[in-house]
Amino acid sequence: MASSSENANPELRKDAVWNRWVIFSPARAKRPSDFKSKSPTDPNPNQQCPFCIGHEHECAPEIFRVPPRHPDWKIRVIQNLYPALSRTLPEPQHAPSGSLQTGFGFHDVVIETPVHPVQLSDLPPTEIGRVFVAYTERIQQLASHKSIQYVQVFKNHGASAGASMSHSHSQMMALPIIPPSVSARLASMKDHFDQTGKCFICKIQREDLLIDSSTNFFSLVPFAATFPFEIWIVPRYHSAHFHELDAEKAVELGGLLKLMLRKMSLQLNNPPFNYMIHTSPLHSNGSELAYTHWFIQIVPQLIGIAGFELGTGCYINPVFPEDAAKVLREVKVPE
Amino acid sequence: MASSSENANPELRKDAVWNRWVIFSPARAKRPSDFKSKSPTDPNPNQQCPFCIGHEHECAPEIFRVPPRHPDWKIRVIQNLYPALSRTLPEPQHAPSGSLQTGFGFHDVVIETPVHPVQLSDLPPTEIGRVFVAYTERIQQLASHKSIQYVQVFKNHGASAGASMSHSHSQMMALPIIPPSVSARLASMKDHFDQTGKCFICKIQREDLLIDSSTNFFSLVPFAATFPFEIWIVPRYHSAHFHELDAEKAVELGGLLKLMLRKMSLQLNNPPFNYMIHTSPLHSNGSELAYTHWFIQIVPQLIGIAGFELGTGCYINPVFPEDAAKVLREVKVPE
Repeated sequence: MASSSENANPELRKDAVWNRWVIFSPARAKRPSDFKSKSPTDPNPNQQCPFCIGHEHECAPEIFRVPPRHPDWKIRVIQNLYPALSRTLPEPQHAPSGSLQTGFGFHDVVIETPVHPVQLSDLPPTEIGRVFVAYTERIQQLASHKSIQYVQVFKNHGASAGASMSHSHSQMMALPIIPPSVSARLASMKDHFDQTGKCFICKIQREDLLIDSSTNFFSLVPFAATFPFEIWIVPRYHSAHFHELDAEKAVELGGLLKLMLRKMSLQLNNPPFNYMIHTSPLHSNGSELAYTHWFIQIVPQLIGIAGFELGTGCYINPVFPEDAAKVLREVKVPE
Repeated sequence: MASSSENANPELRKDAVWNRWVIFSPARAKRPSDFKSKSPTDPNPNQQCPFCIGHEHECAPEIFRVPPRHPDWKIRVIQNLYPALSRTLPEPQHAPSGSLQTGFGFHDVVIETPVHPVQLSDLPPTEIGRVFVAYTERIQQLASHKSIQYVQVFKNHGASAGASMSHSHSQMMALPIIPPSVSARLASMKDHFDQTGKCFICKIQREDLLIDSSTNFFSLVPFAATFPFEIWIVPRYHSAHFHELDAEKAVELGGLLKLMLRKMSLQLNNPPFNYMIHTSPLHSNGSELAYTHWFIQIVPQLIGIAGFELGTGCYINPVFPEDAAKVLREVKVPE
């Protein structure tokens, strides 16, 4: 069966990572290269805010900064002033039941730059690498809490992607549970491993889906991308835990993330976006380590979620991944 | 552990229907009664459009109308002009593989009224009942296709809830697969049945979560509601398939849906919303029928989905279900 831009017929593809179907329906869409974001950019690019250098006292307590204890900091990891979870451990009599537990956890913010108008993709690869290293250091701290099961690192860029602050930042949520999508991913990756003896993500690269690559990483549009122009950045080497990333690879990863964000911004008119780091549970058992493989998922916000998606968990993607990959491959990024 | 408005601490609850965790985090929110939609209402309430009576020739082909073949129709079921799936059956050599199949299926539109400015909740219960009966008749037609596995009925109201047409309508998508959320729901409901011998939804009613009720139906905010002010309408009697609803119960259901939509509109400032009918696969086996139970989920669009939800499949709901139920119970609807 044909599965390219020449085929205008809809197609269903199953994503092997989460084991879910996606409907590709190009007939509803404009040409792949015509997708542009209409979302407004930051309305107050030069506004002073609590995340700006010199305003540290307006923030919730700091966890650490980079460089450590330096007044002229580059990165700050702080508590979220409006955390979704409580840092207070529940008292022992409040043992979790099957369907209810206290909302213990950590909700932190990573301020990626001291300067308001600078966005993550404006930073050089070395500085983006430092942001990744800050994530890994904070995850290592959080891993010392026995009841924390999973740490979700994510970034919301732009108001319609959920960012309430325009100053460039990302968030880390340390959870006392394995969240639903992670359980589904572990189960699906285990099935693939049991059937083939291989990690699915170790074998995910395909020439027609590739966007770019470096020594240790590559970027692609996945075969069953949930969203139009969704991008994954994947380590070539097998690694279950993102937080084992070393400083040298972090700089290389920073370079590839920067390139992907700039391509996305140039092609799609600076869209609001989210990125999520998909990793393994903190206290993984030995066998999980063989079939899980961390990666970064970048999702530009181009279409909304409506009744069909809410009802079925099935998404309709108007752009075939091969076409999105070709468009993104061909975007020229000025030096 | 306390689990009410007096407890400002976050709490995690597991939804037993889909087997997924939801974080309740009231500290981030205003008071439950302060939630209001800021979304604009329909900008062109009196605009003529292809769904209006007299414009039938501007639409894709009709499937049936109510009353049948009557020029002065009340409801029309038509093909979607921009279908996400193709009505053409794939040729036999295009057998579906494990992760790929042609996008065969039906994507229909139900025009709920001939008149543009009338919304579903403006109709009397008898006419809303007729819309439900039209859904059931179309599902019965679709069930004759062996390769159709599931029919998702849904409504998008308001542009930010995904409606591209302001004329009141709903949609039906007939799928050649069991979609991911339905598989998860069947598995979770089966687990509950295997452990307890009971259908979970037959036992879901709880006084503090109840909003209203009629002879055969009741409405509630579920214990682990994914979204603030989410409402379920549930048949009291055990029934796996929505499309077995009879005309008399359809009118009663129409009355309760009307009341819920009016309460939601009055309390939340006419928010954009989606509703989804959660039913069972068309070709269910006998044992599935014992543990699945159809219901309607209504979701007002008050908060967005961002990186955390995309990454984890875990939602953060700022309103405790007990509080939302109390607010909705107390809304006075003018006669």
